[in-house]
Amino acid sequence: MTTKKFLLAESDLPTHWYNIAADLKNPPAPPLHPGTHEPIGPEALAPLFPMELIKQEVSQERFIAIPDEVREIYRIWRPSPLIRATLLEKALDTPAHIYYKYEGVSPSGSHKPNTSVPQAYYNKQEGVKRIATETGAGQWGSSLAFACNMFGIESKVYMVRISYEQKPYRRSMMEIWKGSVVPSPSEETESGRKVRAADPDSTGSLGIAISEAVEDAAMREDTKYSLGSVLNHVLLHQTVIGQEAMQQMEMAGEYPDVVVGCAGGGSNASGLMFPFLKENLDGRRKTRFLAVEPASCPSLTKGEYRYDFGDTVGLTPLMKMYTLGHNFVPPGIHAGGLRYHAMAPLLCQLYSEGYIEAVAYPQNPCFEAAVLFARTEGIIAAPETSHAIRAAIDEALAAREAGQQRVILFNLSGHGMLDLQAYDDYLGGRLIDDHYPEERVRAAMAELPTIS
Amino acid sequence: MTTKKFLLAESDLPTHWYNIAADLKNPPAPPLHPGTHEPIGPEALAPLFPMELIKQEVSQERFIAIPDEVREIYRIWRPSPLIRATLLEKALDTPAHIYYKYEGVSPSGSHKPNTSVPQAYYNKQEGVKRIATETGAGQWGSSLAFACNMFGIESKVYMVRISYEQKPYRRSMMEIWKGSVVPSPSEETESGRKVRAADPDSTGSLGIAISEAVEDAAMREDTKYSLGSVLNHVLLHQTVIGQEAMQQMEMAGEYPDVVVGCAGGGSNASGLMFPFLKENLDGRRKTRFLAVEPASCPSLTKGEYRYDFGDTVGLTPLMKMYTLGHNFVPPGIHAGGLRYHAMAPLLCQLYSEGYIEAVAYPQNPCFEAAVLFARTEGIIAAPETSHAIRAAIDEALAAREAGQQRVILFNLSGHGMLDLQAYDDYLGGRLIDDHYPEERVRAAMAELPTIS
Repeated sequence: MTTKKFLLAESDLPTHWYNIAADLKNPPAPPLHPGTHEPIGPEALAPLFPMELIKQEVSQERFIAIPDEVREIYRIWRPSPLIRATLLEKALDTPAHIYYKYEGVSPSGSHKPNTSVPQAYYNKQEGVKRIATETGAGQWGSSLAFACNMFGIESKVYMVRISYEQKPYRRSMMEIWKGSVVPSPSEETESGRKVRAADPDSTGSLGIAISEAVEDAAMREDTKYSLGSVLNHVLLHQTVIGQEAMQQMEMAGEYPDVVVGCAGGGSNASGLMFPFLKENLDGRRKTRFLAVEPASCPSLTKGEYRYDFGDTVGLTPLMKMYTLGHNFVPPGIHAGGLRYHAMAPLLCQLYSEGYIEAVAYPQNPCFEAAVLFARTEGIIAAPETSHAIRAAIDEALAAREAGQQRVILFNLSGHGMLDLQAYDDYLGGRLIDDHYPEERVRAAMAELPTIS
Repeated sequence: MTTKKFLLAESDLPTHWYNIAADLKNPPAPPLHPGTHEPIGPEALAPLFPMELIKQEVSQERFIAIPDEVREIYRIWRPSPLIRATLLEKALDTPAHIYYKYEGVSPSGSHKPNTSVPQAYYNKQEGVKRIATETGAGQWGSSLAFACNMFGIESKVYMVRISYEQKPYRRSMMEIWKGSVVPSPSEETESGRKVRAADPDSTGSLGIAISEAVEDAAMREDTKYSLGSVLNHVLLHQTVIGQEAMQQMEMAGEYPDVVVGCAGGGSNASGLMFPFLKENLDGRRKTRFLAVEPASCPSLTKGEYRYDFGDTVGLTPLMKMYTLGHNFVPPGIHAGGLRYHAMAPLLCQLYSEGYIEAVAYPQNPCFEAAVLFARTEGIIAAPETSHAIRAAIDEALAAREAGQQRVILFNLSGHGMLDLQAYDDYLGGRLIDDHYPEERVRAAMAELPTIS
């Protein structure tokens, strides 16, 4: 039998995160002050983040040590397995070899704890008692609650009201980990009260929830804010994924020709890609990298590369990103974690420089791929992850077409145990694909800030 | 840091199942015909099971080879990890070492596919086109659907109606794996129609669902029946768990003083225990074995050891078991997988001979333990599994009390991602413990069959 699983020993757990900023050919565009549009320094972020994370955000060091206390928690689920999809290959009758890195083994079921744990740790180190954050469907909120619980920090999660009501189970997870969860818009912040005054029936949005969490953190001395994707330090923490995968591909005696990840804010894709991408930056390899986004929120494939706000209200610094406009509201697809108007600045820069490709898919072909995956490899993937599976399968089919050996590696970023309704809707023929929403994007882009 | 995870290589996957029947001091009591009360031969089971499984049911061979095709599927999630609960030990401030074998990594999230896969395989080998089974909350049904899908067999699952309506997500899993699921009582069988005629609003029961599945299999030439616990061949297949755990404990340089498993039908507990128990039967060890049952369905701790039917209606052969009476209907606890009126005959015999101990807990202390476990070790366990966690914690606390080193190993038989409502109910103070239901048990026992 072909070897299927590549498991590392605990002692192979990476000791450092890899900071791709040290290897970029061009300096990253600096974040700008939302009011003055002038570049900001680290101190501007101090009300929201602990100093150590701000340092990581702007660091030029290539490797940053992972604290022992973080590795102690990582060991609960890391190193995560790398698995060769032998049964899927057979079903596709492809000469390609398909590997996936499985991040669904974490306590909350996705890659998110790779960053929530160090974030909680650095906050704890600097005496922070409480962290506020936002969550849509709850993947990030549950991961942050888990991490805060491990370090004895209070967590406060503003959860988009429609998800709070329709998806009670990720809220239950947060509460198991002592998280305090409130539906957003809430009565607890000025931002929330304003929205509710204008629309008492508001079902909320990620943008509103961000405003509430940021306000909460800014107003309270004991509280900081935490973000689950997009920022440099978040991508940094996720590089444990790619570093492990490099060791495991070596065990398999292969090197990927193409590395695939689904991309909403960009953290799971970057986490897998960056350690491999270093080899391209160093000129040693020509690996392809493929970011997969939903057709209904196509920031890379249809967005503009320019400065925009990270949130809807415009409270955050301006960052240079591929963006659909901060007012863009994507359709309510099941892959809630991919519904972000922009994309991580680091990933965007590498995309603009040609190191990364991007592709966008509607929902139905992604679920079709995920169902085939579940019926061959057994794992029921998260709706977000289904995008990576679709692209990996299409790469494998292209290899068959070309009669070409091809080594494909993708990130199976999370399981779908809490997303079975989405599969039900797909199998029941109830998934309607809102294709690329041209008009919404044009309208949102028209409101982009003018940077002189 | 203490080593936390003990991962086997794929090549360490057991090649044989261990059949404890070969090592019993006394011959197992034979199954009896439900009508004549005479011992039955293998041929009596032929309408329901493929011949190879019937052979395993009565085999005296010590080791039975696992077919390559089964190992190919096992490799999706096996070998499963053995983890030392270092963070739980710290929280309990105990000198005990606590290890758990984690079976929640399987596609359906529990130990059940260890037997559904070989059952589907042997059916396939003998040309069976379709398998019928019953399921309560859906753990067994989803595991069987998964296995049938892998071998291209149709699966038909009679799912207790109240669960079908209240817990749609395990139904979704079954449908992802092409299972055909119908709420029971259904209109598709004589048994189902009878029940519905008498009570059109019947919410169903496991007993009724078994009758429907057995009738379905008996009536159709192309269909066999499949059971997820209790029978000898099911326990046999589950011994992959204990065999892997023995190798992993050796890696850890320890041997368990006590091995713990939750017990409903008895298959996950037996699967972990039997390979270790062999050492006791051989006189080489004096390991303790602890089966943990719910106080509301205490077959071992309060039942009678005598012949009883496996199902409610009385269609199955009579088996010698600790039983609360086949008419006993346990209260509707969240640990649906432990709501069985009796217990696997092999486990019962070993209990009666003093090799295995038993203890029973109400729900609340089990969830208390499971929440502590989730807050330390990160994993949210199934309600069934919470019983094993409670007992393991009590063993660790007893060790602390006694100032004694003690090595505890328990089976973390499944995750709780589809049981978060139960945690919600516990954390919200809404779990009412129906303590040991004396009167119900007395009433059910009064109707036990009289064996001359």
